[in-house]
Amino acid sequence: MIKAGIIGATGYAGQELVRILLNHKEVEIAWYGSRSYVDQKFASVFGNFTKLVPDICKGDDLDKLADEVDVIFTATPQGYLAGILTESILEKCKVVDLSADYRIKDVAKYEKWYGIEHKSPELVAEAVYGLCEINREDIKKARLIANPGCYPTCSTLSIAPLAKRGWIDTKTLIIDAKSGTSGAGRGAKVQNLFCEVNENVKAYAVATHRHTPEIEDQLSYISGEDVTLNFTPHLIPMNRGILITAYANVVGDHTADELKNAYYEDYKDEYFVRVLDDVTPPETKWVEGSNYVDVNIRFDERTGRVIMMGAMDNITKGAAGQAVQNMNLIFGFDEQEGLRLVPMIP
Amino acid sequence: MIKAGIIGATGYAGQELVRILLNHKEVEIAWYGSRSYVDQKFASVFGNFTKLVPDICKGDDLDKLADEVDVIFTATPQGYLAGILTESILEKCKVVDLSADYRIKDVAKYEKWYGIEHKSPELVAEAVYGLCEINREDIKKARLIANPGCYPTCSTLSIAPLAKRGWIDTKTLIIDAKSGTSGAGRGAKVQNLFCEVNENVKAYAVATHRHTPEIEDQLSYISGEDVTLNFTPHLIPMNRGILITAYANVVGDHTADELKNAYYEDYKDEYFVRVLDDVTPPETKWVEGSNYVDVNIRFDERTGRVIMMGAMDNITKGAAGQAVQNMNLIFGFDEQEGLRLVPMIP
Amino acid sequence: MIKAGIIGATGYAGQELVRILLNHKEVEIAWYGSRSYVDQKFASVFGNFTKLVPDICKGDDLDKLADEVDVIFTATPQGYLAGILTESILEKCKVVDLSADYRIKDVAKYEKWYGIEHKSPELVAEAVYGLCEINREDIKKARLIANPGCYPTCSTLSIAPLAKRGWIDTKTLIIDAKSGTSGAGRGAKVQNLFCEVNENVKAYAVATHRHTPEIEDQLSYISGEDVTLNFTPHLIPMNRGILITAYANVVGDHTADELKNAYYEDYKDEYFVRVLDDVTPPETKWVEGSNYVDVNIRFDERTGRVIMMGAMDNITKGAAGQAVQNMNLIFGFDEQEGLRLVPMIP
Amino acid sequence: MIKAGIIGATGYAGQELVRILLNHKEVEIAWYGSRSYVDQKFASVFGNFTKLVPDICKGDDLDKLADEVDVIFTATPQGYLAGILTESILEKCKVVDLSADYRIKDVAKYEKWYGIEHKSPELVAEAVYGLCEINREDIKKARLIANPGCYPTCSTLSIAPLAKRGWIDTKTLIIDAKSGTSGAGRGAKVQNLFCEVNENVKAYAVATHRHTPEIEDQLSYISGEDVTLNFTPHLIPMNRGILITAYANVVGDHTADELKNAYYEDYKDEYFVRVLDDVTPPETKWVEGSNYVDVNIRFDERTGRVIMMGAMDNITKGAAGQAVQNMNLIFGFDEQEGLRLVPMIP
Repeated sequence: MIKAGIIGATGYAGQELVRILLNHKEVEIAWYGSRSYVDQKFASVFGNFTKLVPDICKGDDLDKLADEVDVIFTATPQGYLAGILTESILEKCKVVDLSADYRIKDVAKYEKWYGIEHKSPELVAEAVYGLCEINREDIKKARLIANPGCYPTCSTLSIAPLAKRGWIDTKTLIIDAKSGTSGAGRGAKVQNLFCEVNENVKAYAVATHRHTPEIEDQLSYISGEDVTLNFTPHLIPMNRGILITAYANVVGDHTADELKNAYYEDYKDEYFVRVLDDVTPPETKWVEGSNYVDVNIRFDERTGRVIMMGAMDNITKGAAGQAVQNMNLIFGFDEQEGLRLVPMIP
Repeated sequence: MIKAGIIGATGYAGQELVRILLNHKEVEIAWYGSRSYVDQKFASVFGNFTKLVPDICKGDDLDKLADEVDVIFTATPQGYLAGILTESILEKCKVVDLSADYRIKDVAKYEKWYGIEHKSPELVAEAVYGLCEINREDIKKARLIANPGCYPTCSTLSIAPLAKRGWIDTKTLIIDAKSGTSGAGRGAKVQNLFCEVNENVKAYAVATHRHTPEIEDQLSYISGEDVTLNFTPHLIPMNRGILITAYANVVGDHTADELKNAYYEDYKDEYFVRVLDDVTPPETKWVEGSNYVDVNIRFDERTGRVIMMGAMDNITKGAAGQAVQNMNLIFGFDEQEGLRLVPMIP
Repeated sequence: MIKAGIIGATGYAGQELVRILLNHKEVEIAWYGSRSYVDQKFASVFGNFTKLVPDICKGDDLDKLADEVDVIFTATPQGYLAGILTESILEKCKVVDLSADYRIKDVAKYEKWYGIEHKSPELVAEAVYGLCEINREDIKKARLIANPGCYPTCSTLSIAPLAKRGWIDTKTLIIDAKSGTSGAGRGAKVQNLFCEVNENVKAYAVATHRHTPEIEDQLSYISGEDVTLNFTPHLIPMNRGILITAYANVVGDHTADELKNAYYEDYKDEYFVRVLDDVTPPETKWVEGSNYVDVNIRFDERTGRVIMMGAMDNITKGAAGQAVQNMNLIFGFDEQEGLRLVPMIP
Repeated sequence: MIKAGIIGATGYAGQELVRILLNHKEVEIAWYGSRSYVDQKFASVFGNFTKLVPDICKGDDLDKLADEVDVIFTATPQGYLAGILTESILEKCKVVDLSADYRIKDVAKYEKWYGIEHKSPELVAEAVYGLCEINREDIKKARLIANPGCYPTCSTLSIAPLAKRGWIDTKTLIIDAKSGTSGAGRGAKVQNLFCEVNENVKAYAVATHRHTPEIEDQLSYISGEDVTLNFTPHLIPMNRGILITAYANVVGDHTADELKNAYYEDYKDEYFVRVLDDVTPPETKWVEGSNYVDVNIRFDERTGRVIMMGAMDNITKGAAGQAVQNMNLIFGFDEQEGLRLVPMIP
């Protein structure tokens, strides 16, 4: 039984960590950190935890926390962890960071897209990008995990098998993404009010979204090419879920079956990736509340393009679920422990 | 490890049984019965079960099924089970019926409200009404469980402590209920289309809803009086959840604290009933996907009335979750097994 | 052609006034007042008005505004107008106040329920409660209109015919109300975020909602009795719409038809009240975007109670639509001018 | 005052025609045709029309109808009108067809994509494609209008200015579309139930949607090239609205301003097309219930692609509103008559 601390426990991703860890056999939550709700009952902030979590929210003293727990999850704003993380903390415990601080190896690129100075660039090289299906062995040895962003997780897993084989022209790659509103966080902003989001759909951060370089990096590593692409996220009137619809020209002479088999092959041993039958398009509802990513493709012979689709719960596999999966790998637990969450319909 | 069969597995309650039982340590699902989808893959009907359930849907041969399993769940239309259930089936296995067929002891009353003839009235007396918090000991010895309706479960548990003590005038009792749309089932009806339900709220079956006599029966047993009440359900544009707002005049001289203490007292050992602090009103989101019922009351001294509120997931505690809870009691399993589902936010 | 000014034009009710007045033949909007958005384009706050409204938001200088316009609409927080309204303003122009400041004749009662001191109690007596179907003649002569609250409008019109005749026991009156989220306003609050409201239903302000005394006052005037009642509002995951479900014991010996005929009789000449056929329950979707109130009742002979139901768009008839209806009456325009809005489905 | 008949009045587009025409000064609805609801009150099918429409639904006798009215709107399934339309009907009255029967000039292409035989190919050549902003002069002289599909309307208007100038490489054109559920019609299908659509997003008809050839045809006419493209629609949990996100490589050396100016130029006199300021992305909520199309673009210099966006109400400009706009042009009415609908927020 290890002990875990959560910094940012009262955000949507933070409380999802709680939901998952409460049923995890090997972990006890020892610290509910929340700057905004210090000294308040955690269950008074999220009523779903009534009677399940009697704990009071604590602050964000990372040094103190590192003495008390084996693993720290940070579900904090960009730049926060980079400002306080030290070598001495990493010597005491593992850190799984759900923010973007250590995801991009090129610090200048990070600083440009995020508009903030990186305060601990010396730790970037060591951080392992925690996309478990891609970097499993490195994760097992890591002290610091850069837990992937929601869009990058779903995009990378939906495109990787074809990118890896060089079967798509990455210069033609376009990712059109749709996300539920929990991705926007729990901050009190007019634009995220029920009446503003409900019965509405819009693109946002067109050509400027900060997950763009993260996706480009990952697909560059996988394809061995320098990938530049278009990524357009859209806000959907639903709580949870991400859907990726990606387009690229197929390179060379491949049948639809050949393309599909790349997915079957790469993911045949991956518990959390489900390759759907035939041309069934993924639906976000089919993965809600679970750690699954559902993927499928459709080859359009008229245009020579392949449409690659992926659906995922942005809060689970896109954040807290994947964080726990990373923790499981680091501590040598069963990778599925705590994550055998059956998707919920309706 | 026991074997379970589900008749009506492709309805919303049926597939929720699957969701729960897949993580139940003591049960294996041996039969996915679905008249409409015989010979089709269960996971092709509900994509969430992709890779989790490889089984093909079977028919509804209850006799054959009784030979193969230890417990049968029937999530079937009213009158169906009453038409085929026999003593010989009950000798072979336990039956948990999610329909209304055996809930009302007075067969004439059942026939009047449901407008159908009861085909096995001789089995009604034996059936145990499976409201676990009220009838736990009888349930343990039962062969046939009448699993309670969604509205009656939430209504009864919200009102019982005061009704039992005679502290409310049951002649003044009014229950105003709000339900998510999954309660209407998965039949293809215009009135349940997205565009008809979304952005809309309405009452339905005003003064005629068939759960009325079931609620009246239970509250009559509990209060020792002959209860007649108003029950008005409303259709809410959400998938899951029931909220009960009940009103009654307080009898005698009671403080708000006294009234509230009745709930603390009655439910102090009940894992699945959560009495909320202070006057916090229950929210359906706080119980979504779980087997909890959250209750609270507010005493209005201006009018002398108490407002009793309860929130519950209609598909879980209101149907499949309670059915599993009943099964756990019958077979001597831990009552919470498979049901430690943490409510999901957002 | 008269000129109108709107204070609070960038709230939901304020911008609905704009939507309505843009198609009103007799009115030109001369002032878009919004403290938060002074000097910004009104259409940049509400994109729906792109190209329709080129105006820039102005401040809230009521004296200056009174010199420039014939009528002022105030869609402002409670207490605001009471703090700045003067006799001299009322001599210069008409005021239709969408806040609660002048609705309650008993200033002490207002101060108790609203928790604020009333700064212009001397103007309360003169204000006419602008429920057009009830107070039409007084409205025509008014300088200052207290535009009714959303819940009181729908509640009063749903109950008035029976209350007026003394056919219900007002001591048994209970109003259970359901409202779309626009009623909560456009303030940036966590509790009104999409992810908090969506897939959720809850009661709020149980036994303490500030519309309670307003409803009681109106029903007291109508019934000639001193009415005290329970009013419980619920928050529904939809943008617009209010549904009232009210309960009361029937007094004396009345058939269902007699009760219903009271509605047909009272509303036969009322354009904006629609008495539905038979026992069809009102649906909020049937009035969305319009100035209609749909009402119907159901008499339950089992309990001797009548269930009175009303549906209305809270932003239109419940706020801006009724405000325009009041203005039409004051200025002698056709009462329906600008308000022949056909409800929108789906 | 002309007389109009509607065939298919009880579908979503049909009843929207009613909503619009009720406030049209020059038109009276003389025939509410609905095969499914013959002899029933129209307002009993759509409660929003209570008291506004006392009429009874009639059948679909097109010959008889042509004798009685000046214009017929057909909001009917594909193939229906083609099977019954004749020269003699067109001699008696104008026909605005909201189905796809006369949109595609190449009958073989129509038959291939729709999988049905065209029963009146001789009338195809004469039909005018009713995209008013593009074909205004031809529409004025037409007897038979092929009212454009929802996706083609929004796609064409969003892309036309650049396609016309040859500034985009049409071989790289990809359209990713998002639609509210009303686009799926009012048929009772499981897949369109509230619980299936709500909290879910998915692509459908990937690479096979029947609006593809229609969009390709229009963009081919406009660009003078043979356009083949990818079109992927997605189902969004909302009632109304279409959002188009289109991608193409820019050809030649153009600044972002130059590209944007093409839109300002082409649409400067178009009342129903609004070019948004700066890089503000269109939102479907900003056009809800109106006949507007909001467009904007963003040039991504990193990739050399332009992202073209358009938002529209699929039921109004995408169906009934555009049909009325066509009628206005044919009969010489003010093009905006009946269509000055202000979009509704929230």
